[in-house]
Amino acid sequence: MLGQRLSDLPTPLLLLDLPTLERNAGRMAQRAGALGLAFRPHVKTAKSMQVVQRMLGSAAPRITVSTLREAEYFLAGGIPDITYAVGIIPDRFERAARLLDAGARLTLVSDCPEVVGRLGRFARDTGRCFDLLIELDVGAHRAGLPVDGPDLLDLGRRIAADAGLRLAGVLTHGGHAYGCDGPEALRAVADREALDATRAAERLRQAGLACPVVSIGSSPAAHALGDPAGATELRAGVYVFNDLDQVELGCCGLGDIAVSVLASVIGHNRAAGRILLDAGTLALSKDAGLTTGVGRGYGLVCDPATLAPLEVGTLSAMSQEHGLIAVTDARAFDRLPVGAKVRILPNHACITSAAFDRYVVLAGQQVIGVWDRVNGW
Amino acid sequence: MLGQRLSDLPTPLLLLDLPTLERNAGRMAQRAGALGLAFRPHVKTAKSMQVVQRMLGSAAPRITVSTLREAEYFLAGGIPDITYAVGIIPDRFERAARLLDAGARLTLVSDCPEVVGRLGRFARDTGRCFDLLIELDVGAHRAGLPVDGPDLLDLGRRIAADAGLRLAGVLTHGGHAYGCDGPEALRAVADREALDATRAAERLRQAGLACPVVSIGSSPAAHALGDPAGATELRAGVYVFNDLDQVELGCCGLGDIAVSVLASVIGHNRAAGRILLDAGTLALSKDAGLTTGVGRGYGLVCDPATLAPLEVGTLSAMSQEHGLIAVTDARAFDRLPVGAKVRILPNHACITSAAFDRYVVLAGQQVIGVWDRVNGW
Repeated sequence: MLGQRLSDLPTPLLLLDLPTLERNAGRMAQRAGALGLAFRPHVKTAKSMQVVQRMLGSAAPRITVSTLREAEYFLAGGIPDITYAVGIIPDRFERAARLLDAGARLTLVSDCPEVVGRLGRFARDTGRCFDLLIELDVGAHRAGLPVDGPDLLDLGRRIAADAGLRLAGVLTHGGHAYGCDGPEALRAVADREALDATRAAERLRQAGLACPVVSIGSSPAAHALGDPAGATELRAGVYVFNDLDQVELGCCGLGDIAVSVLASVIGHNRAAGRILLDAGTLALSKDAGLTTGVGRGYGLVCDPATLAPLEVGTLSAMSQEHGLIAVTDARAFDRLPVGAKVRILPNHACITSAAFDRYVVLAGQQVIGVWDRVNGW
Repeated sequence: MLGQRLSDLPTPLLLLDLPTLERNAGRMAQRAGALGLAFRPHVKTAKSMQVVQRMLGSAAPRITVSTLREAEYFLAGGIPDITYAVGIIPDRFERAARLLDAGARLTLVSDCPEVVGRLGRFARDTGRCFDLLIELDVGAHRAGLPVDGPDLLDLGRRIAADAGLRLAGVLTHGGHAYGCDGPEALRAVADREALDATRAAERLRQAGLACPVVSIGSSPAAHALGDPAGATELRAGVYVFNDLDQVELGCCGLGDIAVSVLASVIGHNRAAGRILLDAGTLALSKDAGLTTGVGRGYGLVCDPATLAPLEVGTLSAMSQEHGLIAVTDARAFDRLPVGAKVRILPNHACITSAAFDRYVVLAGQQVIGVWDRVNGW
C-alpha cells in the first residue's frame, strides 16, 4: 500500500494523518512539561508502537496500558516502564510476574484489600515484589476507594506492611470529565481531581506511608487542568487522535482529528432518501458518542481529500456492513455517486480504531506507512 | 486451551456452546426444508468454517457473505457457491473476478444501473460473466429498488441484454422485521417479504426475463415465515448463535443463545453501588440492542456454569475495558467477589463476536475446540 494515493485505497480502511498526529502529540507533551508533571501517555487508544513513540517524543519512555497484552507488546518494543491501570485480579498474577521477569518496571493498580493480600502472598511465595498504586474514585464512580474515610489508610498500611509489595502512590481517573458542559466546568473537575489525589497522598504521608506517585488523568482533564496541586504524573490517551467527543468537549477542533475511516458509497436509495456506505457497525462501532440521540449520528461524513464536512446528511442508521446517511438535500446523490469515497470522523476514536488491525498512515494524499495495532487481550 | 475447564480460562473470552449451536443449526435447516426453500445461510455472524459446516449440515454447500474476505476464506475452505449480498462497487470488480478465477460460483448483487453497466463492460473486456441478483427494498429502506415502478424492469432488461452478465433473480432483506412487536407482526412482515419478492420475479418473467432465484431472508423472518409464496431461497445468519435481540423478538429463549462472553469481576465500588467487570466496550460492543434506553443494559450477566441470569443488577455503563453493573441488591457483592467469573449473553451476537478473533468451544464445562474467525475486510 506504501506510496499509493488516497484515491486508490480499498475500503473500509482506518486512516491516520501523520502531521495531525504529530501536532497533537507535541501539544500534550509540551502541556505536561509546562504543568511540571511527568507524562505517562495511555496507549489504549493507539495500541501501536509507532504512534506511542510519537506520544513520548524525547520524554522518558513510560506508558499506561489497559491490557496485559499491550504491556507485553510495548515491553517487547523497548518500553519497560508500564503502569497497568485496570484493577489487577488473581488470575493475572502469573502473567504480570512474567512481565517482571522479562524486565518490565511494572506498576499494578488495586483498590481491593483481598486482592492486595493475595498479591502480596503470591509475590513473597515466588520471590518477587510488585509496585502498587491505590486507585481512588474522585467522581467517575468506576473503580477506586473514597479519598476520605478509613479504607484508603487501611489499604495503604496493608501494602506497606507486605514484604511482597511496595506502595507506589495513588491513581485517579476523572472519567466524569466527559460529562462536563464547557471549558470552565472541565477545568473545575480537572483541578478538583488533582486536589483530591493530592489530599489522598497527604493522608497516606501523614500516616507515615510513602506516596511518591500521584497520578491523574484523562484527555479532557489534561487539556483543562489549571492547577496540578501535588500531582506528579499526567495520563492521557485519546488526545493523540482526537474525535468528535473531544471536539464537543472543546478540547480540539475538527482539524485536529487524526483518525478517520475511508469508506465507499455502495448504494443510493432515492425512494427512502438514503445514501449507503460500506462503513457500518463493524467499521465505525455503534458508539453514539456523548450526545446519544441528539442527532450527531455515528460519525461525520467528510470529503476524502480535504476532510471538510460534506453536509449531505446524518449518518443516522447502521447495520453490520452498511452505514446509512439520511440525505437532507437531493443533490447529495449527484455529489456522491455509487463508488465515490468519503472519510468519516469517528465519535470515539478508541473504539473505532479497535475495529481495525492496522493504520494506513497518510501525509497529505499519500500513504507513507502501514502501522500495526495490538488488539485483543 | 483444549481440555481446560471453564473455571481455568482467561477473560475476556468468547465462548461458544456447541450443543446449543448444533440445535439452532438443525432447527433452521429443518425449517427451510419444511418450507420447501433452498437454504443459503448467511455467514456474517459466524465467520467461521467450523460453524458454517454445522449450519449447512447435509444440505448443498451454498452461503451468503457480507465481505469479499469472507468469500475468499470460505472458498478456500471448500464452499464455492457464494452470494455476496452487499451491493457491488467498481473498486471490487477485480477482487470478485479473482474469486471467479479461483473457482467460485459467485453471485453478485446490485440495484444500480451505472454499476451494472460498468460491471458488464468489465466482464466483457476481461472475458468473464457475472451472475447478478437485483436487490429490492421491501420495507427495510436500506438497499434495493422498489418492487413496483419502472426501475426493476429497466435494470432487469439491462442485465439480460449484457453478454457479460446473467440475471440470476431477485433478493430481499426484510431488516424491518427487527422493528416488529410480537410473532403475528413478524409473520405478517415475513409473508409480505415473500409476496413482494415473488411479485417482482413475476414482473421480470412477464417481461420475458429469466428469474430463477427469489431469495428472501433474515433470522426473524425465517423463524416467522408462514407462506413462502414463490420464494426459492432462504437466508439467515444470527439464528445459529441467537442473542438477546432474538429473544426479545420471540425467536428463541435464553437457553438457545450459543455465544457468551466470559468475564471476571475486577472490582467493587460499594460507595457507588457498582460491580466492575473486565468486559467493556471492546469485548461486548456498545450495541444496546433493540430496546435502547429501556434498561436491558449491554448484556445479561449470568452464572458461568449454568448460564442462569444472576439478577445482581444491570450492566448499565461501559468504558473501553470496564463493564459496570449497577447493583440492585447489596448481597451481590458477596455473591460476586473480585476475581469471580460470569458469562454475559450479548445483545447482538454478530457485533459482540466480531470483537474476538476466535471462539473457545465448550461442551458443558469443557473446552473441546478453538475455532477461528475471519474478521475484517
